[in-house]
Amino acid sequence: MQIGMIGLGKMGYNLALNLANNGHSVYGFDRSSEVRLAAKDKGLHIVDSIEQMLASLPHPRVVWVMVPAGKSSEMVIDGLLQKMKADDIVIDGGNSHYKDSVRRAAQADEKGIDFLDVGTSGGIAGANGGACLMIGGRRDVFERLEPIFKAISIQGGCLYAGESGSGHFLKMVHNGIEYGFMQAIGEGFQVLNQSRYDFDLAEVASVWNNGSVIRSWLMELTESAFKKDAELEHIRGMVASSGEAKWTVETAFELEVPVPVIALSLMMRNRSLEEDSFSAKVVAALRNEFGGHSVVKK
Amino acid sequence: MQIGMIGLGKMGYNLALNLANNGHSVYGFDRSSEVRLAAKDKGLHIVDSIEQMLASLPHPRVVWVMVPAGKSSEMVIDGLLQKMKADDIVIDGGNSHYKDSVRRAAQADEKGIDFLDVGTSGGIAGANGGACLMIGGRRDVFERLEPIFKAISIQGGCLYAGESGSGHFLKMVHNGIEYGFMQAIGEGFQVLNQSRYDFDLAEVASVWNNGSVIRSWLMELTESAFKKDAELEHIRGMVASSGEAKWTVETAFELEVPVPVIALSLMMRNRSLEEDSFSAKVVAALRNEFGGHSVVKK
Amino acid sequence: MQIGMIGLGKMGYNLALNLANNGHSVYGFDRSSEVRLAAKDKGLHIVDSIEQMLASLPHPRVVWVMVPAGKSSEMVIDGLLQKMKADDIVIDGGNSHYKDSVRRAAQADEKGIDFLDVGTSGGIAGANGGACLMIGGRRDVFERLEPIFKAISIQGGCLYAGESGSGHFLKMVHNGIEYGFMQAIGEGFQVLNQSRYDFDLAEVASVWNNGSVIRSWLMELTESAFKKDAELEHIRGMVASSGEAKWTVETAFELEVPVPVIALSLMMRNRSLEEDSFSAKVVAALRNEFGGHSVVKK
Amino acid sequence: MQIGMIGLGKMGYNLALNLANNGHSVYGFDRSSEVRLAAKDKGLHIVDSIEQMLASLPHPRVVWVMVPAGKSSEMVIDGLLQKMKADDIVIDGGNSHYKDSVRRAAQADEKGIDFLDVGTSGGIAGANGGACLMIGGRRDVFERLEPIFKAISIQGGCLYAGESGSGHFLKMVHNGIEYGFMQAIGEGFQVLNQSRYDFDLAEVASVWNNGSVIRSWLMELTESAFKKDAELEHIRGMVASSGEAKWTVETAFELEVPVPVIALSLMMRNRSLEEDSFSAKVVAALRNEFGGHSVVKK
Repeated sequence: MQIGMIGLGKMGYNLALNLANNGHSVYGFDRSSEVRLAAKDKGLHIVDSIEQMLASLPHPRVVWVMVPAGKSSEMVIDGLLQKMKADDIVIDGGNSHYKDSVRRAAQADEKGIDFLDVGTSGGIAGANGGACLMIGGRRDVFERLEPIFKAISIQGGCLYAGESGSGHFLKMVHNGIEYGFMQAIGEGFQVLNQSRYDFDLAEVASVWNNGSVIRSWLMELTESAFKKDAELEHIRGMVASSGEAKWTVETAFELEVPVPVIALSLMMRNRSLEEDSFSAKVVAALRNEFGGHSVVKK
Repeated sequence: MQIGMIGLGKMGYNLALNLANNGHSVYGFDRSSEVRLAAKDKGLHIVDSIEQMLASLPHPRVVWVMVPAGKSSEMVIDGLLQKMKADDIVIDGGNSHYKDSVRRAAQADEKGIDFLDVGTSGGIAGANGGACLMIGGRRDVFERLEPIFKAISIQGGCLYAGESGSGHFLKMVHNGIEYGFMQAIGEGFQVLNQSRYDFDLAEVASVWNNGSVIRSWLMELTESAFKKDAELEHIRGMVASSGEAKWTVETAFELEVPVPVIALSLMMRNRSLEEDSFSAKVVAALRNEFGGHSVVKK
Repeated sequence: MQIGMIGLGKMGYNLALNLANNGHSVYGFDRSSEVRLAAKDKGLHIVDSIEQMLASLPHPRVVWVMVPAGKSSEMVIDGLLQKMKADDIVIDGGNSHYKDSVRRAAQADEKGIDFLDVGTSGGIAGANGGACLMIGGRRDVFERLEPIFKAISIQGGCLYAGESGSGHFLKMVHNGIEYGFMQAIGEGFQVLNQSRYDFDLAEVASVWNNGSVIRSWLMELTESAFKKDAELEHIRGMVASSGEAKWTVETAFELEVPVPVIALSLMMRNRSLEEDSFSAKVVAALRNEFGGHSVVKK
Repeated sequence: MQIGMIGLGKMGYNLALNLANNGHSVYGFDRSSEVRLAAKDKGLHIVDSIEQMLASLPHPRVVWVMVPAGKSSEMVIDGLLQKMKADDIVIDGGNSHYKDSVRRAAQADEKGIDFLDVGTSGGIAGANGGACLMIGGRRDVFERLEPIFKAISIQGGCLYAGESGSGHFLKMVHNGIEYGFMQAIGEGFQVLNQSRYDFDLAEVASVWNNGSVIRSWLMELTESAFKKDAELEHIRGMVASSGEAKWTVETAFELEVPVPVIALSLMMRNRSLEEDSFSAKVVAALRNEFGGHSVVKK
């Protein structure tokens, strides 16, 4: 099959390689000429514009969009919907908000264009060697592309999730859970690290990956991280967040579902980005006001 | 009435003044000679040792202990129980753990000594001008000293709480709630401070103290703090904690009562003391492992 | 001054009374004829339609909207903006989202209509006897109506907060803090209630209102509630939520400000509405899977 | 090797089988005669008393204790330390508090008895077919028994953790993380379950186990649970907790490590056991007090 891939960042590039390795013809494009050049050097077929991509692909055309959610995906997908025709297929494999995908699918449908929202998990390794895909949209469209999805996903790692938006909804919640797992691991290892014992944290992660209840890929990655840097001395505890955990909490609010663990996982990331906490300043000031507790001056 | 006051720190000193201002004879002692000297200069009757205090007081003797909970109060109260006699009264006005008070009351009782655990709230201003007292122990003992308690507390601010430990139990929970109030205020003002609007935070606190649902003494103190330093530029957001909120959460765990707000208020204080968070390092390392997300190097 | 009041529910009705008691002429309207009739019986001047209200008021007209945020306020305000003219003034005194107020102020401005967003706190008692008002919009418009705002607010309880949206922003955050206060109080009293001691909860709330650090209007209301029903036996622990705490958390997410206490206060309300928790079912099922821990069957 | 196993519940029984299957001679004891009988029927060598067990074992004797932490383990281990002699070895494989293990190891040491604290994970399946073991105590004692530990643990699933208490410390933190994982999964699936989409939750868990970032044994168990009961209709969301997560939080408090996710995971379990929440009653009563919001009557 011939397929266009827009966005050759870490995920898009590796998915393109994965597709190519599985015998598909990929036309890759990235708005950065440097990225295009680098991808060309690795043997991918690169085009210089989306127009060229659309001109190169046979009808009905299949274009996979793998760009950052938000402004980038809005611009790219909006552009595609203007340029493409009935029966063409747009795949959004990024981390778009599921409501955007619902909207875009409806917009596409007005022109007879098919739209699939594909939540993609597994990180770089998965993109390259076998991803986990959660796919929303019309079932018949999914089935038409099923061979592609099967090819690039790991055995069992491809799910038709339901109508439009359901793929990104699943990915959103997946990331919410992921935030919770990661924060739980972080908390546990901090307790170990500051305890009276002198644990070898890589060894601990290793034993927990062998037979324990919490064995998991993230624990394997924890083991790997501690093997590289036994006490994580060389990195700072600053953690950005993309939007999915935030959306999970907001969606949970809409549904009146309590999600304290997911919410706190996100908030502790936000806290990690603060040099100083204004909340804490207020509390320190209040203690000083009523109890004369000394404050740390700046 | 004649009464001994052991511990002349911020709270003990002001309680002693308060007692003296209400016509009671106070024999004050502090283990620091500097503190004793300072208190003597302010007109308090100071003794040079606990022995001298006990020798000076008429029987049955009443000694109010106002020293830091933990090792200090254990040592002082243990010493008193050894030196005092039947019908003497020990008052622990500090923030002792209520279980310690239950134990000490039983130890005292073995010698016929009476023991009251007195939770004291209201800060320095309250200690000096009218405290809030929550008192546990035998009711008849409380009643014997009621005039003293009434004298130094504000109108309505003196409660016989119940059997031994109940005074400190109330104070413990009071502080748990206080932590929650303070953290809620801190969070709210941080949102204001980082918002698109240019709020005058002292004015906001002021309007909230006049007619709003959240009018409160802590909001008045918030107003006061922002009047001194409009954006709290001169203090750092580092907040220590004494034990009561921790004990509240631990007690809640025993009772299987969920106390997320009190627990988080404490944890955010703990977080405020960290230069860098090991938990966050772990999460940053994990994101790097699976997604190639860059970490901030040290 | 003559002023229209749309919405005669608990808040609008009492604000109208308050205005009338301060010598202003109020034309009241509510979409429910029953509510209109009841208000007429209490002596308020009632009109039968918004059109009649607008026809009755002298130019420039001032209309205060006090209807539920969301669909109702959108419909009412949208209608007003269509029917009103340059220099008229619309006041939204409800709990609208501040972004809606920013948008509405801009829409009003296109027609030369002035728009103020007024956060109103203090509950029913405040609406009637002296509210707390936080007002956003153009300063000169605020100043024109200042006598009205001053009349119905308590001394010191009227703040010009800044440009459009700032009044509702303040009210939003106020409610976030309020949620935190209330949850903290709830947690504390639950610990007391399930403790080994037999506390009289009304007495506890009472002593805390006299001299303690946590004295506050909400603690006074706590005292009042326990005086009516000593153990709250006659009510169920089900707590709905309007939107402000949710918006506070969402705004905090946008600003990357951690607000764990406000978020948890909201989530515990959501939890209180669940008969059974699906999350908890999942956890119960998992414990059964790995450890054979028995589950409670339905 | 010959070894005694005290406690033939789910974990002890399966560990005994596991040992027997690996060629070790196990003398099993349980204080319940029914349990003893059942174990005998399955071919285990059962003794009728701890005295008989001690009499049957060759010196130096090795006894593995697998009874509930707390009173049971205190009684059993205390009894063993009285009856056993120098060079005998006691293994506590249960979920004892690490500080108890530190204390018991010291008590044992006074008599020359060796004591190992062994955290055991992996559930019933692991106990039977290959557990994960985290072992604290003297290294030479560990090494003497290493063949046993290796035999019953999965490849890589046996760690000498360090001095006394470190095995149970690791297990404690392991369970804290486990609570966090489970709550995160529960929250995520509740959001899915109450969403607009009609997800097949077993299929979702399945796809997430194939290539996603959150693939894990607990997600496999989630898949298994949903395959048995697609919407968990037949179980109630009531989740008890043993002590380890509580201890993790308490330990974190001691170390001033923030552990919001672990704490909330525990608190949501506690919340799940409440028919009605007193906290929520208080909040409902307060809303009624200030805003006239209706309460649900009982």
